[in-house]
Amino acid sequence: MAIRVGIIGYGNLARGVESELRKNPDMELKGIFTRRDPSSVKTHTEGVPVYSVNDIVSKKDDFDVMFICGGSATDLPEQTKEYAKYFNVIDSFDTHARIPEHFANVDASAKAANKVAVISAGWDPGMFSLTRLYSNAVLPNGNDYTFWGKGVSQGHSDAIRRVPGVKNGKQYTVPVDAALDAVRSGKNPELTTRQKHTRECFVVAEEGADKAQIEKTIKEMPNYFSDYDTTVTFITEEEFKKNHSGMNHGGFVFRSGKTGFNNENDHVIEYSLKLDSNPEFTASVLIAYARAAYRLEQKGDYGCKTVFDIAPALLSPLSGEEIRAHLL
Amino acid sequence: MAIRVGIIGYGNLARGVESELRKNPDMELKGIFTRRDPSSVKTHTEGVPVYSVNDIVSKKDDFDVMFICGGSATDLPEQTKEYAKYFNVIDSFDTHARIPEHFANVDASAKAANKVAVISAGWDPGMFSLTRLYSNAVLPNGNDYTFWGKGVSQGHSDAIRRVPGVKNGKQYTVPVDAALDAVRSGKNPELTTRQKHTRECFVVAEEGADKAQIEKTIKEMPNYFSDYDTTVTFITEEEFKKNHSGMNHGGFVFRSGKTGFNNENDHVIEYSLKLDSNPEFTASVLIAYARAAYRLEQKGDYGCKTVFDIAPALLSPLSGEEIRAHLL
Repeated sequence: MAIRVGIIGYGNLARGVESELRKNPDMELKGIFTRRDPSSVKTHTEGVPVYSVNDIVSKKDDFDVMFICGGSATDLPEQTKEYAKYFNVIDSFDTHARIPEHFANVDASAKAANKVAVISAGWDPGMFSLTRLYSNAVLPNGNDYTFWGKGVSQGHSDAIRRVPGVKNGKQYTVPVDAALDAVRSGKNPELTTRQKHTRECFVVAEEGADKAQIEKTIKEMPNYFSDYDTTVTFITEEEFKKNHSGMNHGGFVFRSGKTGFNNENDHVIEYSLKLDSNPEFTASVLIAYARAAYRLEQKGDYGCKTVFDIAPALLSPLSGEEIRAHLL
Repeated sequence: MAIRVGIIGYGNLARGVESELRKNPDMELKGIFTRRDPSSVKTHTEGVPVYSVNDIVSKKDDFDVMFICGGSATDLPEQTKEYAKYFNVIDSFDTHARIPEHFANVDASAKAANKVAVISAGWDPGMFSLTRLYSNAVLPNGNDYTFWGKGVSQGHSDAIRRVPGVKNGKQYTVPVDAALDAVRSGKNPELTTRQKHTRECFVVAEEGADKAQIEKTIKEMPNYFSDYDTTVTFITEEEFKKNHSGMNHGGFVFRSGKTGFNNENDHVIEYSLKLDSNPEFTASVLIAYARAAYRLEQKGDYGCKTVFDIAPALLSPLSGEEIRAHLL
């Protein structure tokens, strides 16, 4: 019998879950829950009902795992701990500094209800975190490096769009090649913020706006841009729509470390992602961890989990025999 | 109290375990077991006793985990299932085709004795296997690629040394840059054996040997060389000692896959290792999994395990709170 799953929300990430569930025949999408009027939501999958999120508790026996596809700023801190009272749940909570608090809240809900809640799945946190953990455990005498990009930063794009005179804007975070090369060579460089990433902004200005002033405001914006080498390129609305509507992203995690009685040997571990669609890849990770959440509940291993707590075998639709024979 | 560990064997891998245990203060090396006369073994660590492997069973209460550092061809198939009757054990068994059989044998011993046995830890099998499993679970619609090198292949070096007229020889497996680039670009190429790797042989010939015949014999050797573009370079014994006594290795694991309602988005996951010392890196992986083996025994989770069965958190000396705060 397929694992019966639902989706809360219907933004980019939720649609990614919807599309990627089609590649996982052991799961069946049984419903989508929305805060909007359900009749206003047009899904991509025929026959899947759309419900009001207000009715969700009444459906608690109809779903094995619920994908919570809200935002990390305000949605997930409330939603995940609430829905973990009724369902096995999974989220992509990515505010690193608030993970300990989110974990504690969700753990309390899930344990009280004998449910499993997986938080902070995706690629960072998620696949990148796994690489950091494995690599630190294996090379305790070493240095970590994480680079992001080339890809779209939603937060920085939002910041650009709040600048007076800006009609539309998109920001790409770009890792600096020289920094990547230095890390890759095992030189263990000490890198400043400015040496690691540059920021490329593409801006559509309002008619008659002062472009020099817009560029200055962006480049001097504290936290977001002032510590970086930032470029601002003004483009037309047409060009923006044509060339800058993608959601590509990616990045690199390195650990370089030394072994030997005299630390005479160098080792470099590198993990990288090149993603055409950030939300679809994140959704793909969520789906693998939803499978694990279901299996953990079957085993009675309740509570809040992160990618660190979950044995890799639980992610695969294949049996233990199959993965040992074909992937080990 | 530190985890009390022992080492069976004293070759390159065992010495790697000995050196890397120094970077793991939660473990204490309590003894080395050898098939040789113990008085003939000179270790690098003062105060650590060397015992005859014949006395090992009498010490079964003095060790929490035993590193079994034998070879995969004949040692480990016998040793791991035998010592799992008395100790939590870990090995680096790397004969991929025989893993299912080894797993079954070791599992029976370990379960009967309430012990934990981790087999096939290292980097391939090991870290590469983990990358394959995670990446397959996340991108079910995709292709896998594994490349090895540049690095020393022990098996191929042995094959060279068996050729008549060869005094000494070393073989490097080298991934083909054009193949790496094609995979990295997301083109999902179909690659033949010859297109993926070349083989570089450095040979010291016996005085008066027929070098042309040696080169021909190597290049036409079935299984080992005939399917590859192979180069043979004759060098002096001095040059061999100076430039070809290292144990460097490494490689690349890729998965490229497609997402989207129409599979319109491409993703590439890449994991790579550049290792100055193959045995020291393998030893470092074994140490992290020895920690996990000890913890699994404490939890009563007995039997044979591979890297697929072990939650990443169990590898780290840090607490759950610490890894969530710093590595997630």
